[in-house]
Amino acid sequence: MNAPANFDGLEVGFDVPALPGMDEADIQTPCLVLDLDALERNIKKMGDYAKAHGMRHRAHGKMHKSVDVLKLQEKLGGAIGVCCQKVSEAEVFVRGGIKDVLVSNQVRDPAKIDRLARLPKLGSRIIVCVDDVANVADLSAAAQKHGTTLEVFVEIDCGAGRCGVKTTPEVVEIAKAVDAAEGLKFTGIQAYQGAMQHIDGFDDRKAKLDAAIAQVKDAVDGLKAVGLEPELVSGGGTGSYYFESNSGVYNELQCGSYAFMDADYGRILDQDGNRIDKGEWENALFILTSVMSHAKADKAICDAGLKAQSVDSGLPFIYGREDVKYIKCSDEHGVIDDPEGVLKVNDKLRLVPGHCDPTCNVHDWYVGVRNGKVETVWPVSARGKAY
Amino acid sequence: MNAPANFDGLEVGFDVPALPGMDEADIQTPCLVLDLDALERNIKKMGDYAKAHGMRHRAHGKMHKSVDVLKLQEKLGGAIGVCCQKVSEAEVFVRGGIKDVLVSNQVRDPAKIDRLARLPKLGSRIIVCVDDVANVADLSAAAQKHGTTLEVFVEIDCGAGRCGVKTTPEVVEIAKAVDAAEGLKFTGIQAYQGAMQHIDGFDDRKAKLDAAIAQVKDAVDGLKAVGLEPELVSGGGTGSYYFESNSGVYNELQCGSYAFMDADYGRILDQDGNRIDKGEWENALFILTSVMSHAKADKAICDAGLKAQSVDSGLPFIYGREDVKYIKCSDEHGVIDDPEGVLKVNDKLRLVPGHCDPTCNVHDWYVGVRNGKVETVWPVSARGKAY
Repeated sequence: MNAPANFDGLEVGFDVPALPGMDEADIQTPCLVLDLDALERNIKKMGDYAKAHGMRHRAHGKMHKSVDVLKLQEKLGGAIGVCCQKVSEAEVFVRGGIKDVLVSNQVRDPAKIDRLARLPKLGSRIIVCVDDVANVADLSAAAQKHGTTLEVFVEIDCGAGRCGVKTTPEVVEIAKAVDAAEGLKFTGIQAYQGAMQHIDGFDDRKAKLDAAIAQVKDAVDGLKAVGLEPELVSGGGTGSYYFESNSGVYNELQCGSYAFMDADYGRILDQDGNRIDKGEWENALFILTSVMSHAKADKAICDAGLKAQSVDSGLPFIYGREDVKYIKCSDEHGVIDDPEGVLKVNDKLRLVPGHCDPTCNVHDWYVGVRNGKVETVWPVSARGKAY
Repeated sequence: MNAPANFDGLEVGFDVPALPGMDEADIQTPCLVLDLDALERNIKKMGDYAKAHGMRHRAHGKMHKSVDVLKLQEKLGGAIGVCCQKVSEAEVFVRGGIKDVLVSNQVRDPAKIDRLARLPKLGSRIIVCVDDVANVADLSAAAQKHGTTLEVFVEIDCGAGRCGVKTTPEVVEIAKAVDAAEGLKFTGIQAYQGAMQHIDGFDDRKAKLDAAIAQVKDAVDGLKAVGLEPELVSGGGTGSYYFESNSGVYNELQCGSYAFMDADYGRILDQDGNRIDKGEWENALFILTSVMSHAKADKAICDAGLKAQSVDSGLPFIYGREDVKYIKCSDEHGVIDDPEGVLKVNDKLRLVPGHCDPTCNVHDWYVGVRNGKVETVWPVSARGKAY
């Protein structure tokens, strides 16, 4: 292999799939590859959009779990900070130097609350979501114990069907309790409509978001009426950010998948009926895989199976190829339909995973490539940080 | 928390979900929990079965990816060694002291072949599968370069539809090439019928295995006819080991999932029509999860989603509970139907994952519990070793 012998003491194939300076052809598979040109264009585009619409963009770090990608989103895309879903993820981003960190989720376990309340000491703004007034006293006690301030978003369930309260009186009740609690600051609203992001039709998505925006506006009005106007109203994903941006209600976006794209998001349609991976966003994330058996003439077997991706949202597709198709996935193998027998053992293919978030979480490294060369090898810094 | 302050420099919640000596109630979730009593009973039972039937048991390490579990399988279950699917996994098991290691898969990439050929220097027997005569020269050259011997199984595709050749002439051709190659030794046959393991009905599974056994017997006869009687004929999984054991053809089993069990395997039926997780094997592996939101009266939200498990084989079930049901999974959340509202925030539940292999591959640690206490914390030693 055309590569330096080591990388901070790591060895290719034992610990890392590639080293900076290597030819792309020498990368060890299966692994995650980032097309750095496409990634940078996606990041700039979202940044320009947010700026033009007067929106803050808090990039969702639960997608890539990478301090390096987040810093690129700050630098090239004007991201104001990060949101993530777990305290252990927040710890990674804070230690990585990210200064505005939202845990867009509830934190209820006493040990986790204690860890969260310590984080502002490291110099970052920490915001957390609340959907139960019973949580307020615990957060307040922990913040006081550590002499810190935790900021709070009240979470509204505007269609995701997970956490969050549904009615304006509930929102107002929790906001009042937060406002009255020592060590806490009521900062805003979390309202992410997760269930509509992957609906294919643009008008169907718009109808869901219109309902969500009306619900959030009602809550904002209710809060204003008691003197608790929210500083931030936060939400929006890759399938909806244009709705929130033009709502007059939201002022912060939380898009994540736009940066990498995946097969499931790629299928949804824009206003003109085009797939969003054919113009709006580029595929920047790939699972690089190698053919490792072709013992039957019409089937190639590749080395990327369930240990290299999550198939919760369907199988991957093979990027740029119409002649071969990934048709079956088992633990360590992918079966590729190759009717003409065009593939050969050790051929490399780029797979676009069905769902980027849980796929990234399986891997330890991103291999960043440009012009056929490995330019960077970034750790998936918060991989496995599920606590 | 009622726990020691550190564990080889690690801290609970930052790096490990638990520490030895902790109460089970203090484990940080989501994480993998092993019921050590159930695990030991499963391991002993398979060991006793293999011994009584004169079979070698080569435990499949690709399921648990743990040197510690494998050593328990050697100690309590008489396992003769390990099989795994990747060179990087084999490296972990060899370094962990396992002396008989089969890569039950093809190795074609030149860098991987080179790494494989180095491994016997560390004192372990190394066996690899071949399904293409073109692979023989590469393996031979690497073994000669490193002055080692690689043993070879010819892989037969007896129904899995992945790697492997289908006909006896192909098997014989490859075996002859191996036998003639410097640095290689023809040792036997790999014949794992993967596609039938999860068919629910016992008789349906038996029919598939009868066909596979006939195919393998034909190949063995063909090899004997040219003076290449295989020393080992290896295969068999948790859904089939009794067929291989009574075949008169196989002499080595490769069961893996029996040790942990999962929801998908649990559903298959034994000869008497009973689920195999109700008598044959015990659930020893669980995802421990906590309720972290209950803002809607009939739905509890838990902290184990797609980042804590693979759902390729269906959703997990909640162990020992009929009153609540895990009905939906997103990245970091599980939605639990709780029609009577019996669950409370911070309640812990044990989930039985749909598919153990890719679920274990998401996690860094196994928390071994007994009598309500954490007894061990084992690394998932080969986690992410997909190369």
